[in-house]
Formats: sequence, structure tokens, C-alpha cells
Amino acid sequence: MKVVKFGGSSLADASQIAKVRSIIEADENRRVVVVSAPGKRRGEDTKVTDLLIQLGDSIQTDGTMDMDTYMKIIDRFRTMAEELALPIGVLETVKDRIDQAIDLVKEQSNNALDTLKACGEDGSALIVSSYLQQSGLQSSYVNPKEAGILVCDQPGGAIVLEESFERLYGLRERNEILVIPGFFGFTPEGQLVTFSRGGSDITGSIVAAGLKADMYENFTDVDSVYCVNPMYVESPKQLTSLTYREMRELSYAGFSVFHDEALIPAFKEKIPVCIKNTNNPSAQGTMIVAELPERESHVVGIASDKGFLNLYVSKFLMNREIGFGRKLLHILEDEGVSFEHAPSGIDDMSVIIRDHQLPPEKEQVVVQRIKEELEVDMVMIERDMAMIMIVGEGMNQTVGIASNAACAFREAGVNIEMINQGSSEVSMMFGVKSSELSSAVESLYRTFFE
Amino acid sequence: MKVVKFGGSSLADASQIAKVRSIIEADENRRVVVVSAPGKRRGEDTKVTDLLIQLGDSIQTDGTMDMDTYMKIIDRFRTMAEELALPIGVLETVKDRIDQAIDLVKEQSNNALDTLKACGEDGSALIVSSYLQQSGLQSSYVNPKEAGILVCDQPGGAIVLEESFERLYGLRERNEILVIPGFFGFTPEGQLVTFSRGGSDITGSIVAAGLKADMYENFTDVDSVYCVNPMYVESPKQLTSLTYREMRELSYAGFSVFHDEALIPAFKEKIPVCIKNTNNPSAQGTMIVAELPERESHVVGIASDKGFLNLYVSKFLMNREIGFGRKLLHILEDEGVSFEHAPSGIDDMSVIIRDHQLPPEKEQVVVQRIKEELEVDMVMIERDMAMIMIVGEGMNQTVGIASNAACAFREAGVNIEMINQGSSEVSMMFGVKSSELSSAVESLYRTFFE
Repeated sequence: MKVVKFGGSSLADASQIAKVRSIIEADENRRVVVVSAPGKRRGEDTKVTDLLIQLGDSIQTDGTMDMDTYMKIIDRFRTMAEELALPIGVLETVKDRIDQAIDLVKEQSNNALDTLKACGEDGSALIVSSYLQQSGLQSSYVNPKEAGILVCDQPGGAIVLEESFERLYGLRERNEILVIPGFFGFTPEGQLVTFSRGGSDITGSIVAAGLKADMYENFTDVDSVYCVNPMYVESPKQLTSLTYREMRELSYAGFSVFHDEALIPAFKEKIPVCIKNTNNPSAQGTMIVAELPERESHVVGIASDKGFLNLYVSKFLMNREIGFGRKLLHILEDEGVSFEHAPSGIDDMSVIIRDHQLPPEKEQVVVQRIKEELEVDMVMIERDMAMIMIVGEGMNQTVGIASNAACAFREAGVNIEMINQGSSEVSMMFGVKSSELSSAVESLYRTFFE
Repeated sequence: MKVVKFGGSSLADASQIAKVRSIIEADENRRVVVVSAPGKRRGEDTKVTDLLIQLGDSIQTDGTMDMDTYMKIIDRFRTMAEELALPIGVLETVKDRIDQAIDLVKEQSNNALDTLKACGEDGSALIVSSYLQQSGLQSSYVNPKEAGILVCDQPGGAIVLEESFERLYGLRERNEILVIPGFFGFTPEGQLVTFSRGGSDITGSIVAAGLKADMYENFTDVDSVYCVNPMYVESPKQLTSLTYREMRELSYAGFSVFHDEALIPAFKEKIPVCIKNTNNPSAQGTMIVAELPERESHVVGIASDKGFLNLYVSKFLMNREIGFGRKLLHILEDEGVSFEHAPSGIDDMSVIIRDHQLPPEKEQVVVQRIKEELEVDMVMIERDMAMIMIVGEGMNQTVGIASNAACAFREAGVNIEMINQGSSEVSMMFGVKSSELSSAVESLYRTFFE
């Protein structure tokens, strides 16, 4: 059996939902469907989830409801229900649930905002299951509570509890097509909690793992994963297959197809993941699997991300001071700052940190503590750094990849501020100034893919 | 004024001491002389310090003196004294001091072995000062106690005390040429303590700093510092000038001209250091200074060292665990293991450690603790790693150096196991398998110096 997840653009309107139906019908193994909230229909459209957040904020801010936003939300669902000619009861249920959530926000109940945000996915699921049923496919809406998705109580950042997987396995008994709203679960006490943004991918992955599915299909609006961000390179190569590790490293460093942890539950159960296009379902898509036979080229992708800073510390005779590195990292930890990398020289050490981890107020505190507690000669912070990661199984043991990469930087006239290589077997990381990111990525693409 | 230090080969026999005299006479600024113990006269010869250590060991092991070794030591000094036609009293003093030190070792007195080891330098100083005096140059032997070299009581690893520098400054009052034995100092309580091996360089540097000398000249048996270890490259280029930082990074990673901390006292006082050849004093030598005007090529040297290991740790979702890196370093610190570098990936981290820091017994303990306390998925230790460092002021900001280096590795067919770049402004470090060190260094030399 397959668990199939559809993203927001696949559920944006009635014609998209018709495509979803055809896809489900085309393969009888597609038995469990996880849906996102309705996404954008056109460029300037607003996603339903964003409308719900806007609505919740307006109530919290001035106690009254922003009627314009409310109407837009109801209208999105109304148009779909009408165009799909669904029974009037479906739209009423969707509206009732939104109204109930609004009341919770007004009452300032716990997790009320999460409950309101979740109405987008919930509405999608109600509409899709009703449409499948009406068009002749046996189908039920299954609420995450009924499905057994238990999470810890961390509003907007739910983490799945281990017992969920066994509970989900029970769904295998059901014979009809099950439609589950993505993005949220419930605490053992029955409180609704949402995952982080993009959480429908997480739900899909959890459901696939719990059901021990043969495959987790993730339908988006692209034919496949690209080997590089199309923002930097025109029509880049498509990836037909990737390993879990490659995908994880790529998505960590800016590959936006997935949140970097969304696929973990599926990976743990070694379930193959396939990225496909709702608008072109016959395209091969990208398969993500545990292991792959050896390939010709070792570099499969180039990921990149802005928004890093370099905290540079130097102290004469640092390398003779046992515990210096540990103490420096301890100060950061103490201040709640997590770090990404820490390359070190003999008398100096750099710590690469995501920019938002160190706002100016915190920067002052951290710099002060480092100066005083570690008696260093210099502390310096350099912002506007970008990281570029080249990824591929086996590249760590392949002579010449580092040099090809380094030549690409030289050809682009870009200075490499930092190289981090030697720990990961599947990636190599380079730091550059943000302003030089795009030329560096272009040049790396030419080197490894053209 | 200049402080001049002569190494063991410059003091190996009478003809070498005659050269030392000419060098001192040739420049009236050479007012303070620091000497090593007599070194090897030929390839198969034994250094006097090694004979003294052998002698001390024999007494400690079986309580009796190894007469053969004793006679060899006395004979080295006797031959010199005779060939230089020194008064008989000089040899008697040298012999008396050795005999007194032997008695201390027999009595198992504190620091007795240090006292015996120091007799080599002490004998050299007595002979040189007497020879200078006899040949018409006003000269005195000055004991480190009289000179004011105070150290902490750490046998074989003395560290100079701050007050020494002021005391040494007093020597500027003296008008004759002062000859000071290198390698040892005294605790404030009057106990003799030696520096680590090669400690005459340390003495020279301390004396130059204390006297605020205009230059510290260090006479060895090579015309200059080479840009790469001549073991790997035939007659490599000579370096005419280097900055302190370059020298420090180079000597950290295997440049054997100096112990990497020997020059620190001189550096702190910004005293220019000149490496010269006793056997070819007219050669230009290598100047080491605080700052240099910009040079054409940014790479000035390639240093390399074997004997490292890589402790590799992987754990799923490591990058989400605040404090993981710090905890790992803490375990090492707890076990007294100091580390060199710690490159990290997303779910893995490597720690580069000097091999001798982690003997097999300790390896077991450390690995066990990492497994249990950090609940990692994998710990692996890979020995036989070598580090190569390319060094040069300004290279951090020069586009293309990383790529030239990486190309050199590729041309040699050597895989780069680790790259550490981004912290130091003057160096870039590469890890390779020890077996590939020599071909990598050759190739780097061709790239940067040919």
C-alpha cells in the first residue's frame, strides 16, 4: 500500500482536486491520503493557512474578527464545494469547525490558535473525502485523533510520540480510502497541536511509517527535485534518485522541497519516498531511498542558504589551553545559542551560527562573556555569510571533488571564507559572502552538471 | 645589542667553537651568547645530552654508574679543552659539576636528573667563555641563576616566570661578552629545572626578550628555513623572511627548526629573530619579524606532520541537540585528551587528535563514555592520519589558493580526508592518510613554489 500526500497547490481549487482524484484512482495501492490546506491558485493569491493566521491575529490583537479575511476563507471552501457539487452539509461542517475555533481564540483557550490554523487542512480533508465518495471511490475522512497521531504539547512545534506508530498501524484494517488532514496531532489529553510550518509533509511521513507503507508518495507542483535551486540556474537538471542522507543534507542547507526533518519517520522505517507532480503525474519524479547502486557522478546536488554569521575568537596560545573550545561552546549553549560548525586554527576558532540565533542584544552579552570569561585577545562577528553544500554519496572517498569545487570558486572569482570537510561522508561545505552566493552556485553547477 | 644562540652542532668540537668565536668577534653587537650542549660531530655520534640522560637512567635503574658512558662524556669535554688549549681548571670545573650532579642522582634528590641533563649546556658555556677570554675577547660565564632566569618547578617542562625579564635586563650593565648555558633555569627556591627538549632556543628567546635586544640571532647548521621539509623535496626554496604568525603555524605542524613555543618570549617583545648558519655565516639567513610588506606569492611554506587520528561520531539528528559538541569535547577534556580540530557535519562530528593523546586503554574508555553518555549511533577511530598546512599572510583573502591546493592533491591522486579552513587568517589545513603524505607535499610544492 501507498500513503499519498498532496501539497497546497494540488488542493487549491476544484480542478486541482479532480486531478487528485484521478491520481488516487489510477493506482489501487494509494489507500491513505494526507492533505495540506488549499494553497495559491495564482501568483497573487493567499494560502488558506495564511488567511487563518491573519484572522487569528486580528482577534487576538483587538478582540474583534476581521470579517473580510473570514469571508475570504469561507469563500475558498464554498467555491470548491460548489464547483465539485458536494452536498451542502460538507461546507457547513467546514464552516462550523472554523467558527468553533474562532470562539476558542476569543475565549483565549489553550492552543486555540493551533486549532484555528489547522482548519485549512481539516477543510481540505473533508472536501476531498466527500468528493472521492461522491465520485464513486469508497472513502472516509479520518481525524488525526481517530488515526492515533499523538504529539507532545508544544504549540506550533509538535513532536510525534512513539506510541502513534502502533496506533496508526490499526488503520490497515480499513478497506476504504482514508483521507487524513495533515499538519496537526493531539496530545494524550486531547489537545490539538500543530507541527511546524510545512507540517503536512511530517504527517504524511508519520502515517507512512506507522502503516509500514510500501511507499510514501509526495505530490507537489514540480516534476522532480532539482540538483540546484532554480533561482540561481535556469532549468537545472532533475534528480531521478537520491539517498536519504543526500536528501537530508540538501534540505538542511536550503533545499526547500522538504523541511529537513519531515521525512525522518519514513526514513527510519526505510520506506521509499517519491516526489511527484500533481499536474504531470506521468513524469518519473524523484525517488528517495535508503541505498542506491553506485553512480557515475558523485555530486548529486548543490544546496545553499543565506543568513549565517561567523563568530571569530583569537587568543595567543589557545591550542595549549585544554578545554578552550568546550568553554566557548558552553557560553553559547548557556545563552541558548546553537551553532552549526566550529572550524579552528592554532590560536583561533570560528563558530558558524545562524544569524537569527544571535540578535544584537544577545550578541553583546555573548561577546562580553567571551571576553571576560575566556580572556581572549579578540572577538569579532562577521554577518552576511552564506553556506554552500555540495552533496553526494561516496564523494568523501573520491579524489578530485574538492579540487573541482575549489576551481569553480576561483573561476567565479569568489573567495572561500570557510571550508568544512571531513566529517560528513556525503557532503562538503563552503562559506562565502552572501553577495557572492549566486555566482558561486552558478559556477559550481557548471562544474558538476554541465 | 644582539643575543646570539648557538645550537649543538655549532659546539660539537674545537673547530666549531673556533667558528663561534669568529662569529662573535665579527659583530660587536653580539654581546650575549646562549649555548646548547655539544651535539654530534659526525652522523653516528651521540649528543652529550643523550649521553647524560643515558647515564642518569643507568644510575636510577641499578644504582651503579655506567662508566663507559661517563668516560665518553668527560672525554668530549676533555678533547675540546685540550684542542682549544684551555687552562686545566676549566675541565676540572666541568667534571666537578657532573660529579656533583651524579651524587644528587644517587641520593635521589629532587630534580637531580634535570641537574645532570643540564651539565651539557653548562660545560659548553664554561668552555666557550674561557676560550673567548683566552683568545682576547673579554668574556664571563653567567649561570642562569645569576642571570635571573626564574621558572616554575616542573621538571623537564619549566615555564619562565614573569619576573625573570626584569632581572635579565640588569645584564645590560655588564661590559664583557656574557656566555649563558641554555636549557635550564631555577625556581625562586633555587632548584634547577630544565625546559622541554630543545630548550636552549627557549633560553635564547627569554634572554633576548629580557634584555630587549635589537635582534635574536639563532645559529644552526642550515643556511635558512626551507619552505618545505627537505625530506620530501630535494633542495627546496629558502625563505628569506617570515612573520611570527607564519613561523608559529609552520612550526606547530612539523617544521622542526624550532619548538613551536620557543620564540614566543621574543615575539612578545617584537624582537626580530634571525636564523643563520654557523658554517656559512655570510649567508643571508631567514629573518622572522612581526610584520612584512606584502609579497607576490601568498604561500610561504608547507608544513606537515604525521601521528594524528580522527575520532568520528555520528548520531541521527545531532544538529538539533543543543550542547552535543560541547559534551563530546567535555568527555575528552575529562579524560585529559586535548584535541586539535573538530569539523562537523549535520549529523556527525570528527575530532582530530594527536595519536599519542589516545593510547589503546584510553581509547576504550573514551569510546565507551561517548557511546553511553551521548547515545550516539556510531563511534569510529581512524589512525595514521597526517596533517598538511599551507601557510602565508593574506592567503585567507586571496581567491584561488584553496583551488590551487586542491588541484595539487588531485594531481597527486591523493584524497583529502579533511579540510580545515576559515579560522586562521594565515593557514589552511588538510588531512590525508599518512601513506599519502609525501606525494601530497611534493605536489603542493610544485604548485606553489615551482
